[in-house]
Order: sequence, then C-alpha cells, then structure tokens
Amino acid sequence: MNEFELIARFFSPLSGAGAFGLKDDAAVIPAQPGFDLVVTTDAIAEGADFFADDPADGVAKKALRVNLSDLAAKGAAPFGYLLNLSLPPDVTEEWLARFASGLEADQRRYGLSLLGGDTGRGPLTIIITAFGFVPEGGMIRRDGARPGDDVYVTGTVGDSGGGLALCRGDGKGLDAEQRAFLIGHYRLPEPPMALGPRLCGVARASVDISDGLVADLAHVARASGVRLAIEAKAIPRTTALRALWGDGAEAILRAATAGDDYQIAFTAAADRAQEVMVEAGRNGTTVTRIGSVTAGEGVALLLNGEELAVPRPGYRHF
Amino acid sequence: MNEFELIARFFSPLSGAGAFGLKDDAAVIPAQPGFDLVVTTDAIAEGADFFADDPADGVAKKALRVNLSDLAAKGAAPFGYLLNLSLPPDVTEEWLARFASGLEADQRRYGLSLLGGDTGRGPLTIIITAFGFVPEGGMIRRDGARPGDDVYVTGTVGDSGGGLALCRGDGKGLDAEQRAFLIGHYRLPEPPMALGPRLCGVARASVDISDGLVADLAHVARASGVRLAIEAKAIPRTTALRALWGDGAEAILRAATAGDDYQIAFTAAADRAQEVMVEAGRNGTTVTRIGSVTAGEGVALLLNGEELAVPRPGYRHF
Repeated sequence: MNEFELIARFFSPLSGAGAFGLKDDAAVIPAQPGFDLVVTTDAIAEGADFFADDPADGVAKKALRVNLSDLAAKGAAPFGYLLNLSLPPDVTEEWLARFASGLEADQRRYGLSLLGGDTGRGPLTIIITAFGFVPEGGMIRRDGARPGDDVYVTGTVGDSGGGLALCRGDGKGLDAEQRAFLIGHYRLPEPPMALGPRLCGVARASVDISDGLVADLAHVARASGVRLAIEAKAIPRTTALRALWGDGAEAILRAATAGDDYQIAFTAAADRAQEVMVEAGRNGTTVTRIGSVTAGEGVALLLNGEELAVPRPGYRHF
Repeated sequence: MNEFELIARFFSPLSGAGAFGLKDDAAVIPAQPGFDLVVTTDAIAEGADFFADDPADGVAKKALRVNLSDLAAKGAAPFGYLLNLSLPPDVTEEWLARFASGLEADQRRYGLSLLGGDTGRGPLTIIITAFGFVPEGGMIRRDGARPGDDVYVTGTVGDSGGGLALCRGDGKGLDAEQRAFLIGHYRLPEPPMALGPRLCGVARASVDISDGLVADLAHVARASGVRLAIEAKAIPRTTALRALWGDGAEAILRAATAGDDYQIAFTAAADRAQEVMVEAGRNGTTVTRIGSVTAGEGVALLLNGEELAVPRPGYRHF
C-alpha cells in the first residue's frame, strides 16, 4: 500500500469540512467572527509515551487527547486537527485500521475532524496539531495568576504516573482492578474537555498537567510573577494510587511530579471558581482547591506547614 | 541544555504576535474578517530530503519553504508557522544556532513568524505547519481545472532532481558553476511566494510541484475530472540541467518526474494568465505555458505529437 492508498483508505473517511477529503495541498479554516483560533501541537512517540504493544486505537486517542487537554486548559472548544504520522516499515494494515478507528471514536466524542497531515517513514511517532476556538481575546494564558486567587486542579493527580510504574514492573501486590485502573489512566488520559470553555472568564491562569503538577504550576508561577502555595494533602489522589505508593510525603511528591495527567490546573478568585466547581460536580467532573496564590515566586509544596523539597519537579523530554 | 533552555535560547527570539514568546501551551491566531486561514503541513527528514552534512541554515529554510510553496499554490499569503523538531542526542549548539538563523532569515524574507511547536528526541526530522490567509472562499483548489484552460508552470522544472543526482555522484563532467547551481536548487528551493496571492481569481486549479510535475498534475487531473495535455518540449529547463541530462525524451521525462521543485503548476484561462505572466516577468519570476486542459482523464506528456510513456510519474515516500 503506497502513501496515497493509505490516506484514501484510512484517513480520508475521518476528514471534515475544509479538508477537501484530504485531496488538496492544504485545508481551510473559515474565520468565525468574534472568535480567535487557538493552535497547539504535541507529539507522542513509541517508547517515550506508549509501548509497542499498546492497542493502536488507544495510542491514537492518547495522541489526540494530549493536545485536546491543551485546548481545554486554554478555554477553547475543539474544531479540528492535523496528523503527522511517522510509520515504521513493518506497520500492518490491521494496526492502521485500529488506529483510525480510535481517531474516529474520539472525533465523535469531542466533536472535531481531521483537516490534513503528512505521512513518512521512521520510528512510530504521532504528531497532532489541534485547533479550537475561544471568544476573541479570551484565551486563558499562563501569566494571569494574581495574589489572592486560589489554585485548583481537575480530576485526580498521579494515576498515569502510577500506571507507568506498573507497566515497568512496580506494584506486584496491587489487585487486578486497581492495576487496570492505573494502567488505563496511563494509556488513555481523560482531559476534562467540557470544562475548558466554561473556564473562560473564570480562570485567570491555566495550564494542562503534562510534565507534572509541580512543573506545570511552576510555569504559571514564573509567567505570572507569583508564588503558588500548594497544600500537599489537598492534591486529589485515587485509592488505587494510594494503594500503590502509600500516603506519605514521598507518595504525594511522586504523584505531583509524575506527569501525563492531562488534567487542568488553574487559578481563579474563590467565588468564581465556586460556580464552576458546583457545575463540574453535576457533570461528573471534580474540581479541587489545592492552594493559594501569594506574592513571591515558585511553587511551594506544603505538608503540615513545612515546605517539601522537590528534587525533580517533572518530566523532561531531554 | 534541556528542552526549555533550548526553546528559550534558539526559538523564543523567532516568535511573533500570538505566540506569547513560546511560553504558553498554545498560540492564538486572531480572525481576519473577510479572510480564510489556510493550513498545510510537511516534514523533511535526514536521508530522504537532506543530507547529514548539509548546512543547518539551509535545512531550516528548506523545511519552511516546502510548506510555503503549498501556501503560494493555494493563493495564500504566509502568516506564521509551527515547528515540530525531532533531534538526535548528538545535535550541537552550533547546529541549532545555525538552524535558527536560517529560520530567522526566511521569516524576514517571507514575512511570517514562529507560533509554537514541540521538541523531542529521535532521528533528525523537521515538521513545519504553515498558516496563511486568502480572501474568504478564495483558496485555489486542485479540482477547478476546466477544458479550454491552459496549463502553466512557474520557474524551471527538474533542477532540484538534477542536484540530487549530483549529490549521489552523477554528472562528473559538469563544470563547477553548473554543479553549484543544481545542488543549490536541491538544497534550497525558491518557491514563487509573491506570485501566490496574485493567482487568486486567476488560477482555476493549482498545485505545488513536490512529488514531480507529472505526478502533481495528475492530482489536478483526477480532482478536476479532466485531461492535461503537456507539451514535453515546452517544460522550462535550465541550461545546467540540459548539460547534465541532455535534451531528449528521457531527459525531459526525468525532469518532469524528479520532484522537489516547489514551483507552482496551475491552470487558467489564457487571457487571465497573460496578465500574471507579464507581471511575473517584471518581478523576475517566469511563468510558462506548457499545455492545455481537455475533456478526458490523466496527464499526457506529448513529444512531437506522440505520447511519452511515463513509467514512474513522481516520488513516493513509500
């Protein structure tokens, strides 16, 4: 199968308005008056972000979702995406069919379509560029946190890191259900997409948790010129993760620096955040207050009033 | 140097409006009322599209220009780009500095800026996603060619293919100037960017020549449901290329199927094309009539009234 047959068979059926069935050199994104286009791009690679024997539909979904979480953190509603695919020579049609079915399922789930892309030979790498719309001037940036705001996080923190540790052989004692739960989180993040646009006008600064809660909050602290004081025990962690790593300072530190959560950390005034928390609860998403914004710099992880040392705040690609 | 230092040092200085100094999770492209956004993406990889010892500034420019030629072919004026960079562990700071200086030079030349991107470890691969604007509904597609139109091409065809052949050891007899000219074209395409927006409302179908003139025109023929009859001798070729490959049917065939030209092939009514040809001439760009659009299907390469067999119409990634 050559590259044109591959595109026609697996990817053209995923294309939407403005993509011309992937039969042109480019796609068109028509202007939406009153809205800005938000653009973000992230790659996932075999070995670093997924394993060779992970199911292909899950790999496709993960590739898409690590980008969708950025859109959500910026307050944007998804519109479409580009797919740059580097495929090893031994990739099978079965793998590609299952990969495409994963994309299709998430397209329907999150309401977006494929706009274009590029395919080449190389180690298995999936690069997605995602597009979304926010009300004009409304993108939630990293640099808007102000002293007096509180710090919030969606969902739970550290499950994906726990899942990765299990994949690498840790946690022999865990029961099957807990194992499946944590590995599932590593393989397939669940970014709180519905919450994204709801944060516009509420969150003053926001970031998705990809490198690790502490590392990503450090970006916010630096960009905003503030200090973020995080209460370690307030960081929401699942029972499964506590079963794996325990409940002490070390366990919290691991969760807060593991990365790959694809939840949203944001700062907001307490009264504005309250509305969102109530609404999120009704929709099955949790939003937890984990700290406060003060004058100063950096991120402090506080346990019983003492600041924990954070030797390695998050994941680095190199 | 970690990934954040690398971005801050080499790439943040290239960022423009909407990129927030590459310090956020996403970029913003504000709506331009009355214009559509055109989006295209193409990768270049060491070994396939450039050689390991090619100068890094040229590699950067090539990566950008193979995308800009798509924008030009669609009638779009460049606005900005994303950069996904896969870097081998042994990449040096000197290489990166020179790579960034190549991007900077082309940003100034073509009037666009860096909006964001992603960096990871892997074989040296540069993926660019380029954005441009066209008047609303005005993107020149592949499917608008009509019988009665003529077929045109910008610049000359085959020089890059000739340069690649030289890099692989062909053409020992060529003089130094001709060698430098052809290798220069392979290393650094010169897409006719100023002409792109001028083709809006004139070209009825258009494509950039990346895979090869015949292969890319075949996309236009298929999408438009027409036949393109190309006069082989009308295909513009340089003296250097004629010196390398000669002037017979075989030579023309090689030029017309070599690819990597990054010129524009388009169809238009003769009278409308005439205006563009005159204007292009004044600006130092050539536009040559090479054939006509008729009813039927496919691309016919005609030499002295006979149709040449085209065993391999163009380059395929796989």
